[in-house]
Amino acid sequence: MNKLKLKEMLKGFFMEDIGERDITVQSIFTGEERGQFTFLAKENGAFCGEEVIKTGFSLLDETVEIKMHVKDGQLVASGDVIAVVHGNISALLMGERVILNLVQRMSGITTKAHKAVEILKGTKTKACDTRKTTPGIRMLEKYAVACGGVCNHRYGLYDGVMIKDNHIDFIGSVSEAVKLVKAQVGHMVKIEVETSTAEQVKEAVKAGVDIIMFDNCTPEKVKELKKLVPSSIVTEASGGLTLENLHTYRGTGVDYISLGCLTHSVQALDISAKVMIYGGER
Amino acid sequence: MNKLKLKEMLKGFFMEDIGERDITVQSIFTGEERGQFTFLAKENGAFCGEEVIKTGFSLLDETVEIKMHVKDGQLVASGDVIAVVHGNISALLMGERVILNLVQRMSGITTKAHKAVEILKGTKTKACDTRKTTPGIRMLEKYAVACGGVCNHRYGLYDGVMIKDNHIDFIGSVSEAVKLVKAQVGHMVKIEVETSTAEQVKEAVKAGVDIIMFDNCTPEKVKELKKLVPSSIVTEASGGLTLENLHTYRGTGVDYISLGCLTHSVQALDISAKVMIYGGER
Amino acid sequence: MNKLKLKEMLKGFFMEDIGERDITVQSIFTGEERGQFTFLAKENGAFCGEEVIKTGFSLLDETVEIKMHVKDGQLVASGDVIAVVHGNISALLMGERVILNLVQRMSGITTKAHKAVEILKGTKTKACDTRKTTPGIRMLEKYAVACGGVCNHRYGLYDGVMIKDNHIDFIGSVSEAVKLVKAQVGHMVKIEVETSTAEQVKEAVKAGVDIIMFDNCTPEKVKELKKLVPSSIVTEASGGLTLENLHTYRGTGVDYISLGCLTHSVQALDISAKVMIYGGER
Amino acid sequence: MNKLKLKEMLKGFFMEDIGERDITVQSIFTGEERGQFTFLAKENGAFCGEEVIKTGFSLLDETVEIKMHVKDGQLVASGDVIAVVHGNISALLMGERVILNLVQRMSGITTKAHKAVEILKGTKTKACDTRKTTPGIRMLEKYAVACGGVCNHRYGLYDGVMIKDNHIDFIGSVSEAVKLVKAQVGHMVKIEVETSTAEQVKEAVKAGVDIIMFDNCTPEKVKELKKLVPSSIVTEASGGLTLENLHTYRGTGVDYISLGCLTHSVQALDISAKVMIYGGER
Amino acid sequence: MNKLKLKEMLKGFFMEDIGERDITVQSIFTGEERGQFTFLAKENGAFCGEEVIKTGFSLLDETVEIKMHVKDGQLVASGDVIAVVHGNISALLMGERVILNLVQRMSGITTKAHKAVEILKGTKTKACDTRKTTPGIRMLEKYAVACGGVCNHRYGLYDGVMIKDNHIDFIGSVSEAVKLVKAQVGHMVKIEVETSTAEQVKEAVKAGVDIIMFDNCTPEKVKELKKLVPSSIVTEASGGLTLENLHTYRGTGVDYISLGCLTHSVQALDISAKVMIYGGER
Amino acid sequence: MNKLKLKEMLKGFFMEDIGERDITVQSIFTGEERGQFTFLAKENGAFCGEEVIKTGFSLLDETVEIKMHVKDGQLVASGDVIAVVHGNISALLMGERVILNLVQRMSGITTKAHKAVEILKGTKTKACDTRKTTPGIRMLEKYAVACGGVCNHRYGLYDGVMIKDNHIDFIGSVSEAVKLVKAQVGHMVKIEVETSTAEQVKEAVKAGVDIIMFDNCTPEKVKELKKLVPSSIVTEASGGLTLENLHTYRGTGVDYISLGCLTHSVQALDISAKVMIYGGER
Repeated sequence: MNKLKLKEMLKGFFMEDIGERDITVQSIFTGEERGQFTFLAKENGAFCGEEVIKTGFSLLDETVEIKMHVKDGQLVASGDVIAVVHGNISALLMGERVILNLVQRMSGITTKAHKAVEILKGTKTKACDTRKTTPGIRMLEKYAVACGGVCNHRYGLYDGVMIKDNHIDFIGSVSEAVKLVKAQVGHMVKIEVETSTAEQVKEAVKAGVDIIMFDNCTPEKVKELKKLVPSSIVTEASGGLTLENLHTYRGTGVDYISLGCLTHSVQALDISAKVMIYGGER
Repeated sequence: MNKLKLKEMLKGFFMEDIGERDITVQSIFTGEERGQFTFLAKENGAFCGEEVIKTGFSLLDETVEIKMHVKDGQLVASGDVIAVVHGNISALLMGERVILNLVQRMSGITTKAHKAVEILKGTKTKACDTRKTTPGIRMLEKYAVACGGVCNHRYGLYDGVMIKDNHIDFIGSVSEAVKLVKAQVGHMVKIEVETSTAEQVKEAVKAGVDIIMFDNCTPEKVKELKKLVPSSIVTEASGGLTLENLHTYRGTGVDYISLGCLTHSVQALDISAKVMIYGGER
Repeated sequence: MNKLKLKEMLKGFFMEDIGERDITVQSIFTGEERGQFTFLAKENGAFCGEEVIKTGFSLLDETVEIKMHVKDGQLVASGDVIAVVHGNISALLMGERVILNLVQRMSGITTKAHKAVEILKGTKTKACDTRKTTPGIRMLEKYAVACGGVCNHRYGLYDGVMIKDNHIDFIGSVSEAVKLVKAQVGHMVKIEVETSTAEQVKEAVKAGVDIIMFDNCTPEKVKELKKLVPSSIVTEASGGLTLENLHTYRGTGVDYISLGCLTHSVQALDISAKVMIYGGER
Repeated sequence: MNKLKLKEMLKGFFMEDIGERDITVQSIFTGEERGQFTFLAKENGAFCGEEVIKTGFSLLDETVEIKMHVKDGQLVASGDVIAVVHGNISALLMGERVILNLVQRMSGITTKAHKAVEILKGTKTKACDTRKTTPGIRMLEKYAVACGGVCNHRYGLYDGVMIKDNHIDFIGSVSEAVKLVKAQVGHMVKIEVETSTAEQVKEAVKAGVDIIMFDNCTPEKVKELKKLVPSSIVTEASGGLTLENLHTYRGTGVDYISLGCLTHSVQALDISAKVMIYGGER
Repeated sequence: MNKLKLKEMLKGFFMEDIGERDITVQSIFTGEERGQFTFLAKENGAFCGEEVIKTGFSLLDETVEIKMHVKDGQLVASGDVIAVVHGNISALLMGERVILNLVQRMSGITTKAHKAVEILKGTKTKACDTRKTTPGIRMLEKYAVACGGVCNHRYGLYDGVMIKDNHIDFIGSVSEAVKLVKAQVGHMVKIEVETSTAEQVKEAVKAGVDIIMFDNCTPEKVKELKKLVPSSIVTEASGGLTLENLHTYRGTGVDYISLGCLTHSVQALDISAKVMIYGGER
Repeated sequence: MNKLKLKEMLKGFFMEDIGERDITVQSIFTGEERGQFTFLAKENGAFCGEEVIKTGFSLLDETVEIKMHVKDGQLVASGDVIAVVHGNISALLMGERVILNLVQRMSGITTKAHKAVEILKGTKTKACDTRKTTPGIRMLEKYAVACGGVCNHRYGLYDGVMIKDNHIDFIGSVSEAVKLVKAQVGHMVKIEVETSTAEQVKEAVKAGVDIIMFDNCTPEKVKELKKLVPSSIVTEASGGLTLENLHTYRGTGVDYISLGCLTHSVQALDISAKVMIYGGER
């Protein structure tokens, strides 16, 4: 993760929630009181968000002290303490919701990724993510995916080639498309091509791509198409896969299975912050 | 929605996905080809995202022509055409994923909000949202909630007072907290207080707040506490409510029920873009 | 005040004044010299700007030490020491003008607000501000208003409803307009309506708005219209009010009087910085 | 004026006022209605703000049509039409306050500048401005000053040298300070030095500065010091000058008189917008 | 190239040069005059910068009309017309320097890249660029490199792995380093390793990297090391290569030669703008 | 240099290179290791970039300790230690390339500037720079020029008037152009006019400009034209001057010679970073 970028993102998120001021906190507190936040897991899952907690609260309060009890990617049970934060109570209260919103989402993603890994355990197939992330927080969502043990597919349109069906239709053939791409991109960029028929797979093999994706294929079809691909080329199954049907692909031998559901539909992990304000009269 | 703000947000989101360039598109196309995108619902639900489609594609292609077949908040069935977009095909392909990522999330939220409305139909209780939104896109998520017929609670810490249990603990009593707040905020700001006991409710009534929230109470308790509140004060039930247990609160008579689940855990509505590239050899 | 936002604002303001460099300071000083600034009131008034001084100088010099002698909102007499600042003299000199420009304006506003409070003393009528603030520094101007004991009206178009005469003309009636608004906004938003006749006031009362504003009315008319409003609805007089004519509204019994003059026409409070550079030859 | 910069500034100002949405306008209007704004002078003065009106409304509504009846710097009488604007009524209403806030301030400054010019008419002395502007809108305020016929002094710390008393105290003498500066700055930068005694003036003349400023001097003293300066060096009087005492300097023969009051204390010119919404039922 | 990003970059560059205003142009012209710019090559080379000219002038003048006579990457001879631009003359003059500064640099890079291609003509070795670009304009510099026929190496630290000598020293061996990396990155990322001895090359081959770089090796050594690498792994020579010594590597058989000099030391191509202002008295 | 601005610039430059993460470093290191960078000159020249090293690394690692061995503008020989930096090794490695890219360019410029100074030594003619800088880093390039002993010409279009041939053609005469400008700009702005004939020079002298530039003139012509200018007006030769032909202007007596080549064509000074990672097993 790029911490400098995280810092700028968090500034924006705090602006969104705090706006010109926190009316409630600024009416109730003098701004001098100190206190403690205890982040607790309220259900079982896998945690993710250490850097969000650290960078987030530090932005609002330079004096904050944070003790993490859990590391990114680690499993937590309901009731587990995740982190204890001491600092200026006004600052902590102003940051609470934004930080929880991020950490709950990230932990929800890590938890889901972890489940996908469990489902594929014992096979040589790995899960990977997609670009179906929430705009604005892709860095955090891709990081959360990786913390769950799932691989990151390309980050954006800029760091990998993906030749899709409509590109192929337009150009006329897989081999023509690959040729055009190879003439443009350097040796540091991988080329993946979307296929759905045996002909396309054979053509892709011949064209010398790095990854062949089987788009929207049943486990049987994946198994069959996979046989056409030499081991030097990576294979990937994609399209409509969820934690519910993932196990049916266990026997396909495909190298990667990409799961849009990891990020396009997130079930936030329930995490709460128990607040304690240190003595002191107002 | 503030369209000027939407435009700036979309610029940032396109930067995140496109980075320095779209390697694939810029290898395959000359940049001159034109084509058509047809956005289709792939499952039943409620659509939201007209302005995202319009502003988004216009940012990438000033010549784009967009015909909406569905309005924000309208129900769609699997197979329904949502919008048809004509324009520069390179621009459309570069924008596709970001726009779908937003529109699917927004439609997912509107769909969920619509279900909440259905569940409460026939009662005088209304659903409302919370600040449990995805950082960076609260404006879009709150808009999607409203398109589903659910009310917006406050937008941030800046446009409404919410006195919580730990504020009250710190100050000593509901009435003390309300007094402090009233001394600070003007006449344009509403004051809500979180309560969980009959004593607190009575104190809040006496203190003259605008809204009394019953925090984490069973339907029975809500019903009981509600009786302590005169009709001039709005009531709200909050905490742990989901589409699954919402119906159990139908008989409570409470004015509002806030649902964090509308935005903290989103099931994206499946929408896809069918691409057609107009003739033309490369 | 949102200090994170203040920091970003101040960065922009320093950029505006310093540009690529301070030619004079960088020619005269080596960048190592230290010194002291003493901020002094040069006329009587009420001070405002502690956070601007602190955050501003800290941005330019991390080693700065600041001792405030006066708190925000406190009255000062000509000659009073407001703050003493020790630090890198080049940094202090580069920040001086921007900080004075803000603090003098803010103190000018607080002073004016304080005078309004004095004029209304002994009545139950309070003064409030408007959206007639200087673009870009509303947060600071509204804060300065509040430090002078005057209430903040809504912060922007986003945190309160104000139904104006041309809205009403367009829709046809006060009650129609209120109905439309109530169908859209949630329970956390207050609704104010602008009226100028007894009919409109009666209609507004019936429509159940939160605040009724008497627009451009004489004290006599305000008094008369006020009688039509039950005590549960807040009243506000607005339009053309200044510190000169404010006293004529003392007997109207209206709850709030909004004063655009507090921020649209500011008389900066005269504050100067006495500079002392610690020994050291160049 | 840099129009590209103005556009970015206006975006920020609209964000400040509109936030996530204009609750009122979005409840009352469908977003399709069109209408007309007539900007009217409500008091006598000099107008400034054509580009703010044009760029501002264009940002909110690309279809807007604007007809200016008055040019920047032109005198207006109460009741004069300044501009007529046709466009989307929701957009116009959302922009109204921000644009008025700027145009009223700018016109207030131009009006004040115009008065200063009147006071000095018939002498060879010209008025000029200072860096005592409102942070964030210096470009607009300096532009408004110039529209009133008053010269702009330096824009910031970056485009001119001003050697002040505490610089001189630190270095030891005017000539030493000037020597240091001349060794650093190129031939495109003017050098001004602050003086208050005959000795300093003589030293400054000898050091070969471009402008000599007489700081906080009475008209008599200015007259006297001015005699020590050859005509090839520009002279400037500064410090505590207002529209009230400016006439007392008419006979001093000084080249420029700088007036901080032009921008540090602004009396907004009263300008209002008469709204007309074109027919059409909702 | 990402045109949306280019637009934001150009805005920043114009701000840097124009600041608050163009004093000269705004004194000389009324702002209404129109005219023509003819961009001419003043020396032989390869042109690059079409999109900078188009997007740049459009930002300053929406009415501008641009006719390109040369395409990106095309060779030009001294005297050739590159582009003819018609528009508002004040806007064109304000944009001239920034646009020339970019286009001259980009064309200088394309020219140099083109020379590298010429030197390697007839071999199967290709040239590629590095990350030694000017901060802030990498997108433009990498684009210019590609227009000259040279391949782009990775764009940043984010889109490709490069294991360097100090990474290897720290971890202990090439194979350990590659193992660590493979455990983290997905299938869309290429892995390159820096080597300088036969042992390291053999280890890298065994570890299964995508690209092996021979760091700071003589042509002879490159030739020798290259023999140890199977054809399925790409090879690259790097370090201290310039247009002067590049030909000595023609016979090495290496796949890529990376040239930092393409971007770290740029000789701007001389391009000038001939201005014609259309008639019209002022 | 404006350090606040430098900080913001560096943030942007790190974003450009690091993007979402440094894949390599984050795979190899735990993020806890510490180490040392030694910056070494690899060729003779003049160093520039102290503040870039300090501010740059501090942004990435708050704990960094930096010891400079060389000051800005100081000559270095191949092998000289420039700076030693201790800190978090991941942070140092992530920042290395961006910082080297800047420091090498800046030092290249300072070295070139220093050579220009050497060439003009013994005459009263000084070298100065131009606006032919790399967009986005003008502040750094102009600073590097000054560190080499060369004067800065104007920074942008905003801080000095330059009347060019096409302005004069449009207006009709030098004197008309100067008159128009003088009517607009204040006393803090210098006015330079471009001339190429004796008539223009005489007219410029009469018009009372501050600087007269001889555009694209041979040394002989410069010498001749210079004679027409009184010593109170500064003279400048400009156009096509390089380090190669600069000595031919030594005898012209002109005050300044502007050199676009100092910044439009930079030969980076070779500087490298030797990395040492402190013990510690992974």
